Amino acid sequence: MFESAEIGHAIDKKTYEAAEPALREALLEAQYELRQQARFPVIILINGIEGAGKGETVKLLNEWMDPRLIRVETFDLQTDEELAHPPEWRYWRQLPAKGRIGVFFGNWYSQMLQNRVNGRTKDAQLDQSINRALRLERMLCDEGALIFKFWFHLSRHHMQARLKSLADDPLHNWRLSPLDWQQSKTYDRFVHHGERILRRSSRDYAPWYVIEGVDPYYRSLTTGRILLQGLQAALQSGRGATPAPHAAPLVASPDNRSLLNSLDLTQVLSKDHYKAQLATEQARLAHLMRDKRMRRQALVAVFEGNDAAGKGGAIRRVTGALDPRQYRIVPIAAPTDEELAQPYLWRFWRHVPARGKFTIFDRSWYGRVLVERVEGLCAQADWLRAYGEINDFEESLVEHGVVLVKFWLSIDKDTQYQRFKEREATPFKRFKITEEDWRNREKWDAYVEAVEDMVDRTSTEIAPWTLVEANDKRFARVKVLRTINDALEAAFNKNNQPRPCGLHRDGTGRLVRTHS
Amino acid sequence: MFESAEIGHAIDKKTYEAAEPALREALLEAQYELRQQARFPVIILINGIEGAGKGETVKLLNEWMDPRLIRVETFDLQTDEELAHPPEWRYWRQLPAKGRIGVFFGNWYSQMLQNRVNGRTKDAQLDQSINRALRLERMLCDEGALIFKFWFHLSRHHMQARLKSLADDPLHNWRLSPLDWQQSKTYDRFVHHGERILRRSSRDYAPWYVIEGVDPYYRSLTTGRILLQGLQAALQSGRGATPAPHAAPLVASPDNRSLLNSLDLTQVLSKDHYKAQLATEQARLAHLMRDKRMRRQALVAVFEGNDAAGKGGAIRRVTGALDPRQYRIVPIAAPTDEELAQPYLWRFWRHVPARGKFTIFDRSWYGRVLVERVEGLCAQADWLRAYGEINDFEESLVEHGVVLVKFWLSIDKDTQYQRFKEREATPFKRFKITEEDWRNREKWDAYVEAVEDMVDRTSTEIAPWTLVEANDKRFARVKVLRTINDALEAAFNKNNQPRPCGLHRDGTGRLVRTHS
Repeated sequence: MFESAEIGHAIDKKTYEAAEPALREALLEAQYELRQQARFPVIILINGIEGAGKGETVKLLNEWMDPRLIRVETFDLQTDEELAHPPEWRYWRQLPAKGRIGVFFGNWYSQMLQNRVNGRTKDAQLDQSINRALRLERMLCDEGALIFKFWFHLSRHHMQARLKSLADDPLHNWRLSPLDWQQSKTYDRFVHHGERILRRSSRDYAPWYVIEGVDPYYRSLTTGRILLQGLQAALQSGRGATPAPHAAPLVASPDNRSLLNSLDLTQVLSKDHYKAQLATEQARLAHLMRDKRMRRQALVAVFEGNDAAGKGGAIRRVTGALDPRQYRIVPIAAPTDEELAQPYLWRFWRHVPARGKFTIFDRSWYGRVLVERVEGLCAQADWLRAYGEINDFEESLVEHGVVLVKFWLSIDKDTQYQRFKEREATPFKRFKITEEDWRNREKWDAYVEAVEDMVDRTSTEIAPWTLVEANDKRFARVKVLRTINDALEAAFNKNNQPRPCGLHRDGTGRLVRTHS
Repeated sequence: MFESAEIGHAIDKKTYEAAEPALREALLEAQYELRQQARFPVIILINGIEGAGKGETVKLLNEWMDPRLIRVETFDLQTDEELAHPPEWRYWRQLPAKGRIGVFFGNWYSQMLQNRVNGRTKDAQLDQSINRALRLERMLCDEGALIFKFWFHLSRHHMQARLKSLADDPLHNWRLSPLDWQQSKTYDRFVHHGERILRRSSRDYAPWYVIEGVDPYYRSLTTGRILLQGLQAALQSGRGATPAPHAAPLVASPDNRSLLNSLDLTQVLSKDHYKAQLATEQARLAHLMRDKRMRRQALVAVFEGNDAAGKGGAIRRVTGALDPRQYRIVPIAAPTDEELAQPYLWRFWRHVPARGKFTIFDRSWYGRVLVERVEGLCAQADWLRAYGEINDFEESLVEHGVVLVKFWLSIDKDTQYQRFKEREATPFKRFKITEEDWRNREKWDAYVEAVEDMVDRTSTEIAPWTLVEANDKRFARVKVLRTINDALEAAFNKNNQPRPCGLHRDGTGRLVRTHS
């Protein structure tokens, strides 16, 4: 969720100053149109890491927009009056009317996160709070509200640097936060629990936007553009209709930096090193798969990637060291008739491995947000809601002990071209290249966008994406094997700790602690 | 939620046998149309009280329908294979395909309820399970599935009689249940936690239907008709479209018995008794309102009822004994411009009382599911989702310490006619009667239906409806006052117990226990 907000996004002052006036003007115009239509309110939630520019962004929005039509509400400690009313009352009384914009700074998410970080609540209570928030947001959206949820992010390294500079700045060092951010444990806990909140509360009707906060120009331009795009889309949707969900596509990054193009595709492995490392990792995998702790886990590896990125070769290296009874490869192509008669995820549920087993998906449930999205094979509403459904699905797997590794094998356009040409020239490889591959290639940029969105919305702490630099096949294969082995080992070690006694299965079969 | 399933619904054999063949035929026809269209699957969940006829209903459905297109799945103890997979896997593998019907007996709700009743889980974990179930159902509905959730109910009295007769029957006394239903505590806990599940998981896209199970003829006919109506509505909705939600209207009861017409409207109070009781209850209320425990509560009284049922008079008797600074009366009429620019519940949130205060709503948020529904002032989708939103709203109030009493003042049609005529004849009452009142009266039956649905879907353990027999004004006024006093006293006594230490506010400000 936070990966693409830790790559050091930045733009220079000149670019910013060139872009800002037009953005400002467009925002103002949208704001007036919003008032004119007076059809729906806009609610902007501001959350994230200390020092990532939440306050500055709010200040900037106020400068950019017409202050008569935007109101910033800071929900900090409750007033006496607020304490005397039900907790939601403070938010209801400050809701923006149709045609207006309300910026909620320190909202329902801030408080639940602080309580969890401070250890005052546990996961189950955090989930209750998340679900209350979702019910509220669902209702607001059903009533027409347009909700933007921003999470301003900093890598730990950047946060520490930022805190230091703030401490040195006499204008800012008076600031107080309810959390002690000097402790690096605080950062870890905040990000860990924040990730849970984002994963569970990012829904098609009210998605989260994660924005890297280290560079103010990048941060401001990105926030402004997301707002503008969402506003314009909602304003253009039919009058009287509920504004359309606006979960994606994310606005193209103004600095043209992205997770994919931050990859160092020049990494290579010499033949000798490759042979040695491959043998080591294959032996390690064979060993891990025979470990008796594997009986309590299952393993799922998902392979996605550019055409000709080498998925097949990588999969063969993974299975090379294994007994065929230990694994299954499930190639995902067009759904069968039987599969079409079922909900989308059904065709993947039927291949979920039992404990002790290993299933490799050659392409996967991500088809919906990749090929189906890009090729228009499903409605926008369908792939928009798929992110949340996929996160729910993967959570089910992981909570049951499935170790889930997801690979995106990434090559650059030139490498793909060479490999396509090679395939056409090699008789026994010719079947691997079709007209369709060339057509897909034309949609390269659309795929890049879809991949970025996919990683942003589905790379979670419990099921992270691994981006694999695959220009060099040897490098890619070893990285894939090593990632699988590391993940398995981590799971074994985690579960090696003695289980608290009194565990049993709850309503949907999950392990929970017994209260006797 | 369960009130209308405890009034002893029954029909005679003759009526049943007259109605059954046509119902059967229509169901079969709908089933073939379903297969023909193959546009969506139907999932029927069977839950409820032991002995309320769950098994018999499933058996009957199988007899009625074409068994090739319906499949009953009993989810009991998990098989080895199921235990080796994530908990949802067992449901996914049995999902009916488009065009088919799946009856899930012993489903996700059964297990979470049993665990809660047995004390193996707490409320927070139950809520997590409920929310997982809701996410699953939401996804299934987004994929087109039509979901019916049936809760077969028995009053405690009927359940005990039923258990006794089963025990005497050699064909049935071998049955085992994971819960010991002989204990009356089991019944109470089952109904208490079941109510929480129903309240939180009854949503417009997958509502619960509560059916009284004491009489097999009534039970079967009602279940069949609900299924038929829901199926037909979904089949008629545009091809390719997602089936419409089907939360209400409930099918008219085949025995013409209902909560409203079960009321004994002949109850009267003599003038002397009235005077004495009124004085007592008014004094009691004045006393309770001055009690220092009132500082920790707030009081909300909602008055709804037939036109001319005597709401105004009842309200005056409530406030009669109070200092005007202690209460506020909020008359709800057409919304103002400002209110129209906000979500529906906003106009009520603004009048929610602070701690220690008392607010009387003369008509209320129930307008959406009464007048707005009947007069077509809002879209069906809007009033259908309102039931769930209202339950959420009231839960917020009650969790914060608001004592919530809701009155429906009920008179019969003749009494209303007399009162209308009287009003027209009395100069100072003439302003109270308009053309609109006469028009509303023509929609008497539609209002009855709306009131029944409202009570079924929003009378909850935390905020029950009180139906007030109001043909006799004196009787009604005393009942209203006494109900308020009883509710306040119960709340005081409940909160009189010492609070566990270490409480604090969670993310949305609710009191939760601190874990240090």
